[in-house]
Amino acid sequence: MKYPNSNKEYVRPKVSAANRGMSLEDDINTTNRYYLTNDIAVIHKKPTPITIVKVDYPKRSAAKITEAYFKIASTTDYNGIYKGKYIDFEAKECESKTSFPFSSIHQHQIKHLSDVTRHGAIAFIVLRMTYYNKDFLIKAEDFLTFYNSGRRKSLSYAWILENGHEIGSSYYRPCDYLETVKNIFEF
Amino acid sequence: MKYPNSNKEYVRPKVSAANRGMSLEDDINTTNRYYLTNDIAVIHKKPTPITIVKVDYPKRSAAKITEAYFKIASTTDYNGIYKGKYIDFEAKECESKTSFPFSSIHQHQIKHLSDVTRHGAIAFIVLRMTYYNKDFLIKAEDFLTFYNSGRRKSLSYAWILENGHEIGSSYYRPCDYLETVKNIFEF
Repeated sequence: MKYPNSNKEYVRPKVSAANRGMSLEDDINTTNRYYLTNDIAVIHKKPTPITIVKVDYPKRSAAKITEAYFKIASTTDYNGIYKGKYIDFEAKECESKTSFPFSSIHQHQIKHLSDVTRHGAIAFIVLRMTYYNKDFLIKAEDFLTFYNSGRRKSLSYAWILENGHEIGSSYYRPCDYLETVKNIFEF
Repeated sequence: MKYPNSNKEYVRPKVSAANRGMSLEDDINTTNRYYLTNDIAVIHKKPTPITIVKVDYPKRSAAKITEAYFKIASTTDYNGIYKGKYIDFEAKECESKTSFPFSSIHQHQIKHLSDVTRHGAIAFIVLRMTYYNKDFLIKAEDFLTFYNSGRRKSLSYAWILENGHEIGSSYYRPCDYLETVKNIFEF
């Protein structure tokens, strides 16, 4: 197997999944804290978007939201800065053995990935295939090319293995996606 | 012409404020929509961070959050990408005639502005001085230097006039901060 656009022999990355936690979100948050504390990058998860309808202001205690609803996100969940570059990504967990359906990503988020890519972002999807206990980084560019071709309604696991880039993990960086970013994007 | 309640001579601003709306947040959101629609930049406001305590899942209707509390933001409210650069800013309205108190910005946000600046962001504060009906862009770098000097607990209006950069407005861009960014940051 070869890297795309390269004659380099594919060397299977030494990827350990031993340090992964319960959820991809937790693992990314832990990793982001490591990046921040060690001054490697400043990347945060955006808060969950909600529509607030009613708020109580009880005396002598904090304002309490008593009616609110979840909104569909208009952007991806994570963004920030790494080596002076704008980083933007969406994280998804997929339980299927065979494919990752496009219906798992909102239209808004696909448009957003396309927008930021056009403006020069380092944009991607972090995809956890839970059955295989593997995390992959998929460049937004590669994802969008395939998505826009309209050929299929999902990414097959074979496509993910060929076009995705496996993400390693360690105790403090259970989803060490910036190590992968460093190797596959140009700086 | 004189300001109401003031003996100061009215000096016509070099920028028009005629198109400003009710709140700075609304004006920035309108401006960001213009930037997005016209493919100038991709900059979004982050959702308000809250802690969700209780959610009801009624049959046949949307999940309803019935208990939640506001959290202190750990980052600034706005970020995104412009000309390939990571943009990050906080927006504040100030009603005082004389100064903008540091207590109006959370410690977390100041740390965040410092973090992203160190990593090469274009970072700043958009400050609306409502009494004067003027918006200013203050570079995070300039703000942090003054803040860290420990000399004062606020920015005086004189300091803002000297170190800030006035932001113009037009119908579709009621707070056209990127025009100011273009002029004062290097690309």
